[in-house]
Amino acid sequence: MSEKKIEEYLEKVKNYQKELSLLSEISSLLGWDEATYMPEKGQRSRAEQKAHIEKIIHNKMNSEELWEYTKRLKNAKEKLKKRDKIMIKKLYRDLWKSRQLPEKFVEEFSRATSKGFNSWQKAKKENDFNIFKPHLKKIVELSRKKSEYINLPGHPYNSLIDDFEEGMTTKKLESTFKDLKKELMKIIEKTEKENVNVKINYKKRNMKKHIAKELGFSLDNLRIDISSHPFTTTIGNEDVRITTKREDGTLFPITSTIHELGHALHDLNIPKKEKYTVLGDSPSFGISESQSRIWENNICKSRSFWKYFSKNFNNNLEELYKEANAIKPTTIRIKSDELYYCLHIILRFELEKELIEGKIEVEELPRLWNEKTKNIIGMKPKNNKEGILQDVHWSLGYFGYFPSYALGSIYASQLYSQMKKEMNIDKKVEKGEFKEIREWLKEKIHKHGRKYNAEEIINNVCGEGLNQKKYIKYLEKKYLNK
Amino acid sequence: MSEKKIEEYLEKVKNYQKELSLLSEISSLLGWDEATYMPEKGQRSRAEQKAHIEKIIHNKMNSEELWEYTKRLKNAKEKLKKRDKIMIKKLYRDLWKSRQLPEKFVEEFSRATSKGFNSWQKAKKENDFNIFKPHLKKIVELSRKKSEYINLPGHPYNSLIDDFEEGMTTKKLESTFKDLKKELMKIIEKTEKENVNVKINYKKRNMKKHIAKELGFSLDNLRIDISSHPFTTTIGNEDVRITTKREDGTLFPITSTIHELGHALHDLNIPKKEKYTVLGDSPSFGISESQSRIWENNICKSRSFWKYFSKNFNNNLEELYKEANAIKPTTIRIKSDELYYCLHIILRFELEKELIEGKIEVEELPRLWNEKTKNIIGMKPKNNKEGILQDVHWSLGYFGYFPSYALGSIYASQLYSQMKKEMNIDKKVEKGEFKEIREWLKEKIHKHGRKYNAEEIINNVCGEGLNQKKYIKYLEKKYLNK
Repeated sequence: MSEKKIEEYLEKVKNYQKELSLLSEISSLLGWDEATYMPEKGQRSRAEQKAHIEKIIHNKMNSEELWEYTKRLKNAKEKLKKRDKIMIKKLYRDLWKSRQLPEKFVEEFSRATSKGFNSWQKAKKENDFNIFKPHLKKIVELSRKKSEYINLPGHPYNSLIDDFEEGMTTKKLESTFKDLKKELMKIIEKTEKENVNVKINYKKRNMKKHIAKELGFSLDNLRIDISSHPFTTTIGNEDVRITTKREDGTLFPITSTIHELGHALHDLNIPKKEKYTVLGDSPSFGISESQSRIWENNICKSRSFWKYFSKNFNNNLEELYKEANAIKPTTIRIKSDELYYCLHIILRFELEKELIEGKIEVEELPRLWNEKTKNIIGMKPKNNKEGILQDVHWSLGYFGYFPSYALGSIYASQLYSQMKKEMNIDKKVEKGEFKEIREWLKEKIHKHGRKYNAEEIINNVCGEGLNQKKYIKYLEKKYLNK
Repeated sequence: MSEKKIEEYLEKVKNYQKELSLLSEISSLLGWDEATYMPEKGQRSRAEQKAHIEKIIHNKMNSEELWEYTKRLKNAKEKLKKRDKIMIKKLYRDLWKSRQLPEKFVEEFSRATSKGFNSWQKAKKENDFNIFKPHLKKIVELSRKKSEYINLPGHPYNSLIDDFEEGMTTKKLESTFKDLKKELMKIIEKTEKENVNVKINYKKRNMKKHIAKELGFSLDNLRIDISSHPFTTTIGNEDVRITTKREDGTLFPITSTIHELGHALHDLNIPKKEKYTVLGDSPSFGISESQSRIWENNICKSRSFWKYFSKNFNNNLEELYKEANAIKPTTIRIKSDELYYCLHIILRFELEKELIEGKIEVEELPRLWNEKTKNIIGMKPKNNKEGILQDVHWSLGYFGYFPSYALGSIYASQLYSQMKKEMNIDKKVEKGEFKEIREWLKEKIHKHGRKYNAEEIINNVCGEGLNQKKYIKYLEKKYLNK
């Protein structure tokens, strides 16, 4: 292929990616608005608007023209610049995966998850799994089918994990989580469980904006709002928005804001020149999660952080540190502490995997959920609302998503351990100096966008791939003073 | 054409209209967010997102398929139901107009107004017309060309007015405005100009939400936010949003909120079954404006309104009534009172008309603007910022828009006069009973959507078409006790 042709095709393919990026940003705004400011009755129109944008995205993503150009460029790989070669490789894979799913299947999946989400909301509200059951059955059935369509090598669950963790396998998760589970349960056994219940008393209003400024953010390219579940979303190159929820008298608004700020920093640092391409993204959900966890847990739950930050409270340092790090089992994932959190994930992983391989069925789920919770966490959910109905993910068809949360914690500790070798983190944090930490994360992770996958980037930075031992070591040091 | 074919084509055409409506709602959300909550640096991405949605809308609107079905249905008119016949007539006209403009021209116009808007912002900020001049020249040139492409009968300005006031002509505006100008200047001469400057002192916080509730709105389908210029926008069937701006110590936040609530009521009352068609709209910008003006001026600047509403202030009734109705010339349109306001519009109409017919050129505009202001309003603008640069409209290529504001005031008084014949408005308003007024407007105007044009609907309700005499009579009664 001539250089001129290559240039021409690259231009075409870039335009497609730009349009897809713009549409995805617009879709994000629809979602952000729905979760923050939309009047209640706007719901029905919003569903139509979102579905329409998704349809446009789907059609563009699966256009024959884009596929044709991408294939030709993939074949011309030796003639491409290194960066373009990576871009085309990623794009080809995304398109290939998308094209494995027949249009009719995509529509059916979309309808099923739309109904699934609504029925889940109702089921959770009314604490009645039966409302959700037929919809979940359908979603599981379709997810098994999806795995058949994608058909990556190995375990059928591999094809689903891949949407969130490119290249990750069931086998690798099994061995990682097996060890992690065993070690976490050991640490928990040796750790004092305390019913800490400090009433948190802020000195300032607007503590969320305050912490953002302290960590080095400007409100020129960031918003902080309130929604029923905290999240981060990117609306534009320099327009990232985080939310938190109100929980007066607790540290939750602070820790969840810090968590989301970690995501926001990542998103804001993705290089502008990659923003409108497939490379303008995170390597994986796990890496994304590592960027929020490292701030929320490793950095901001440290004693050095509270040495610096306690000045903003009427509580004393010890109270604050204790409250931030209290270890206490709960049946609710999102209320879990550093030690229990990953156990909740492993529980979901074990169930998902067996669901997808057809070893268990939806009917058995509530019972299995409760048994596993009892075995792993040590207590039984009060009811399905606080058990199997607590999370939204399955209702949206997000099988393969949960492992990313645990991977995020592991990666975060690997990065933290590496960062510690390169600078005295505690000394900086104690003085409220976060700039070097931000820069380190930008240089090592953010600036590469999606050029490398999770395993590659962790290897590049830490000299080894995924390693749960680093996380276990971090927890042992913190909770067992090892 | 068989009934089955007609059904099939109607279905197709409805789908197109629905998709166009959804995209236009999405575009409205992009605009609303930009004006309210978007972080400053989101600007650049937002421009790209808006341009992309506009491109999708343009392509869909001009699709050959839609045009083909619409033409066939138009030809089958005798076989259509009455409502479908009107819908197809309106749709055909919209599409026909859009198709008169070559794609290249549309792109050029879009680029020119995008640059025009930016240069106007800069020019206004720096009080320097020269920054805006070359861009305005280009926009005027393109607007003349647009008028040639559309080429409606009569004056070339007709083709531009038509975007805002379907069927309105330059000739009709000339005679209406000539009389209105003369009479307004007479009333002004006889009216005492007072430098009222009451410091307004609210008893409650959140007066904007309070007035909305008083007028019968619920916040389930309405939002009220702050932006630099007040506006109303419809994001979905039951999702209408208004904004106002902060001006402590004045009545502006109240009167502008009432103005926008008038728009919101109109938008919310458009029947759901028409929402996703060309009939799910207002008959014209003038009718829209009448729905805000009738609340802002006729109803809520009355003494009976303040008898009811003064309880919410630490000021007394007379102070409030005086402040709401103070007559005082200003060179700024949006700060004008009921008597001067339309004179500002007539000034703009006279200039626009001559610009489009090529009688005057952009170079002369600042001088002509200042002379006309002196002649009509009686004072000269301090500078171009408070003169020719005050309004955004021309920078966006909105030639033909301004007359709608004056038409709105006239229609409002015609409707108000008719409503008075049918109920004792003052007695209701004095008691804070607004329900019947709302219902009257819904029955007479809102529920018809865009089925009738402005002249038709005013005729249906008032037994005569546009008549400035009713407006003059209202003003004479109010200001001269005639």
